[in-house]
Amino acid sequence: MDHLDHLVRSGWTRAGAADADLPAHASRWLAARTGLRPASTPVAPGSVAPVPDSALPAAVRAVLGSIVGAEHVLVESPDRLARAGGLSYLDLLRRRGAGDLAVPDAVVVPADPAEVVRVLAACAEHGVAVVPFGGGTSVVGGVSALRGGFDSVIALDLARLDRLVSVDPVSRLAVFQAGVPAPVAERLLARHGFTLGHFPQSYERATIGGFAATRSSGQASAGYGRFEDMVAGVRVATPRGDWRLGTAPASAAGPDLRRLVVGSEGAFGVITEVTLRVRPKPVVSRHEGFVLDGWEAGAEAVRALTQEDVRGAVTRLSDPEETEVGFTMNGGWKTRAVRAYLRARGVREPCLLVIGWEASSAAALRAKRAATLKVLRGAVRLGRPVGEAWRRGRFSGPRQRDALMDAGVCVETLETAAHWSGLSALRTAVTAALTGSLTRDGRRPVVACHISHTYETGASLYFTVLVPRDPADPVGQWQRAKHAASTAITTLGTITHHHAVGVDHAPYLSAEIGDLGVDVLRAVKAELDPAGVLNPGKLIPGPATAPR
Amino acid sequence: MDHLDHLVRSGWTRAGAADADLPAHASRWLAARTGLRPASTPVAPGSVAPVPDSALPAAVRAVLGSIVGAEHVLVESPDRLARAGGLSYLDLLRRRGAGDLAVPDAVVVPADPAEVVRVLAACAEHGVAVVPFGGGTSVVGGVSALRGGFDSVIALDLARLDRLVSVDPVSRLAVFQAGVPAPVAERLLARHGFTLGHFPQSYERATIGGFAATRSSGQASAGYGRFEDMVAGVRVATPRGDWRLGTAPASAAGPDLRRLVVGSEGAFGVITEVTLRVRPKPVVSRHEGFVLDGWEAGAEAVRALTQEDVRGAVTRLSDPEETEVGFTMNGGWKTRAVRAYLRARGVREPCLLVIGWEASSAAALRAKRAATLKVLRGAVRLGRPVGEAWRRGRFSGPRQRDALMDAGVCVETLETAAHWSGLSALRTAVTAALTGSLTRDGRRPVVACHISHTYETGASLYFTVLVPRDPADPVGQWQRAKHAASTAITTLGTITHHHAVGVDHAPYLSAEIGDLGVDVLRAVKAELDPAGVLNPGKLIPGPATAPR
Repeated sequence: MDHLDHLVRSGWTRAGAADADLPAHASRWLAARTGLRPASTPVAPGSVAPVPDSALPAAVRAVLGSIVGAEHVLVESPDRLARAGGLSYLDLLRRRGAGDLAVPDAVVVPADPAEVVRVLAACAEHGVAVVPFGGGTSVVGGVSALRGGFDSVIALDLARLDRLVSVDPVSRLAVFQAGVPAPVAERLLARHGFTLGHFPQSYERATIGGFAATRSSGQASAGYGRFEDMVAGVRVATPRGDWRLGTAPASAAGPDLRRLVVGSEGAFGVITEVTLRVRPKPVVSRHEGFVLDGWEAGAEAVRALTQEDVRGAVTRLSDPEETEVGFTMNGGWKTRAVRAYLRARGVREPCLLVIGWEASSAAALRAKRAATLKVLRGAVRLGRPVGEAWRRGRFSGPRQRDALMDAGVCVETLETAAHWSGLSALRTAVTAALTGSLTRDGRRPVVACHISHTYETGASLYFTVLVPRDPADPVGQWQRAKHAASTAITTLGTITHHHAVGVDHAPYLSAEIGDLGVDVLRAVKAELDPAGVLNPGKLIPGPATAPR
Repeated sequence: MDHLDHLVRSGWTRAGAADADLPAHASRWLAARTGLRPASTPVAPGSVAPVPDSALPAAVRAVLGSIVGAEHVLVESPDRLARAGGLSYLDLLRRRGAGDLAVPDAVVVPADPAEVVRVLAACAEHGVAVVPFGGGTSVVGGVSALRGGFDSVIALDLARLDRLVSVDPVSRLAVFQAGVPAPVAERLLARHGFTLGHFPQSYERATIGGFAATRSSGQASAGYGRFEDMVAGVRVATPRGDWRLGTAPASAAGPDLRRLVVGSEGAFGVITEVTLRVRPKPVVSRHEGFVLDGWEAGAEAVRALTQEDVRGAVTRLSDPEETEVGFTMNGGWKTRAVRAYLRARGVREPCLLVIGWEASSAAALRAKRAATLKVLRGAVRLGRPVGEAWRRGRFSGPRQRDALMDAGVCVETLETAAHWSGLSALRTAVTAALTGSLTRDGRRPVVACHISHTYETGASLYFTVLVPRDPADPVGQWQRAKHAASTAITTLGTITHHHAVGVDHAPYLSAEIGDLGVDVLRAVKAELDPAGVLNPGKLIPGPATAPR
């Protein structure tokens, strides 16, 4: 259970993590900027959510035990609580006692893909809902233990599918079982000289299968592509049997059904193996910070870097608000020096741009950097310390969130993407929607934004929200803000760039893919999962519901 | 009708085309190499296929006329014959009187996407099969006028959907109607300084919609990607209404349903508009020829170029047999000089490698070329004349085929792809299967192969077959060879890399995507096309049938 103890305790942070505390200067700044009152909300002492008795019938438990071994059907409260949802702000609130936490009736831990198929067949036969569970890092309700119309629900934990099945160094392919956590995958690949290059903020806990099921995208997507671009093949357990896809590097053999599995979020089947394109591990890397004056100049620079194909593997632009938050949260004399340096150069609205290059040799890195700098002539260079500071802290966002919640802050992120010509309008609309919804009763939200994934035709926008929690209605406070943002997004962008649909985005899906698109998803699900036991309530929208 | 007159006449060639004749030295070489006897088969005088009376009921014709205008419902024989199938060897044989040619009962030519939706609804209501028709260049039976279980079938000709709808130069996106032929698309884009960079051998006649429906891949795929990689959005007419997909440069909003439409070959709906990523038109290009000694050395070189990311936009390797055919078909003193040059350098099994670089400046091209040459140290350079000769002739294959058929040659191509580690085994197996099937009664086939599309994880293989036609059973001769090759392919690669499924590959699809995959395709079709009128007999396999 150790690898999920943070979920039992109600946050991301491991006990004793060094970067988990909120510095005093950050608290002071939040108070001044957002109206946060230190005493407004007590710190929750870990999870206070109640765990109901298991509703799994003993006979079904016995059947599942006969497949995976009785010792791999877990029904103790801590085991079940650890798979009771993911890590969205609402999930964390539920663990702190606000809102209803759905707890699975049992945790089933199969040993291999064949056992997964048999578990699904048994659950379909006995009418038990199945929630596939990898690292538990969903921030959209993707692993909430919803039972749909069924009497019981299991979490299907893929932790024992933990093998690197094979490596083909000539074709640069590696086959992983779905439950392999990302850092383990990197360690296993490193022995062969390879890397996936997939480093989302969830990297420390997320799994290979989860990346594929949710169309994940990592911080180095500019260099390595989205996770879906790495997927050469998939093996999927369905209630109707085992399904394998992906026999060649490219094909015209009808629609690419791999792309129907990738992003299916456990609603069509459970991904048990993924064949991934791998790349030689880079020998050198270098991260630097730059500043552009104003959002438009920054976005134009990032577009030019992308369309001229001279980005770094990491290319990340913060808007003025996020840049300000970053400066402030870091604090200290270095920040003051940077501010003075920028003022002296006439920069009025600093936008931080972090570029990270990787290469197989120092000479190759120099050449890449030179090509980038040629396009970035108008930027102020902050050099390596700023870039390396970003690199060191690149997985710490989730940890800071626990401390912020302890301090009474509503802290959440959301993301979208749009084509370049509509990107700034989208940022403006989402910022206005979130700000409008969250500004009340003296609370003044911080709505910060960055671009961290760029494409020839457009880019992602990632929003971070900080606002004092509404003690009277913490759940409704965020639900209303999320709905306002999502409504703005559906007319100008995609409802999610890399967080997936889960429960939270399902009501907005038909606006994006059409009623016909939703009908197609339903038809595919009905074909592969006729009993409807797979991850009910996720991905495919039910009747639309307005938030409270 | 003019743009399809070649189909009425039974081949690809426009009347009077300069490159349509078979040179005398080529005929002599074919006689010696394959056993071709000049008098064995008379030249067919254009199409001799009978055109039956139209079976479309007058009432339905009136309904369709009320939607598109009576003058856009064509029932004259030449109009119908021009949409009676595509350009596979079997199609051409049928037009020459061997085998049954399916002729549509009418040709319906709608003006816009809305009319397409209404035509489909009417056909669904009245039980009329619909075969979407673009450039008519399918080589897998994709536009054969099959009626499935219905009494009549129309060809839905998209020629009037001929507009460039919009260009977004900032996002580098262009929206085309589906019927725009590729050369027209390039001319329209060139006014804005852009190109698609999509140049398959069918380029001169194929359409944007056809490219998307079949997962096309062009000769410059190394530089511009496969067509599916260019598709940012699609608009699809279905019997249930209009469907639009693609709102952002990337998304995690469930499975990428664009990828379910791309490659659906008219079985789910009719693609009416495609939003495409475009790129600045290159300013300079340069094609050069190289020779490597033996297939393995050649494939290794191409793999290295690809995995080190220093390919040209065109990267194309011929095996020894194709290299020999190329030398011989060109003939003349230049070939003799090249042979002597290679012998002097100790090359025993010449494999021609053509590299085509493109860039925005001469300096950029020099840098790209230098990076390529660094990896190609072991190759013999043949210089620009060989490369430019390939470039000039790059669309002439289909034309040469008409002359070869006139001379009594069975000439056809097929293609597949595999990961690098299995590529040579696949080439060996397919070559053996084709050679074994076609060697009889003194006929000795030429089976030539090239790699023309490469990926980090593997490459395509494209086979060209030349063998004297069996006058007693020309259709069965090829069907047996194709079945032998397809059987070899299904265990080692994909049944098609860029020709699509159509009729010809449908029997082999379940071996590749599984019975569950076929069931999913059927479920999607049933959802979008409940009456089953859309392109019956294509893509989705019926019961398996062995060839004669």
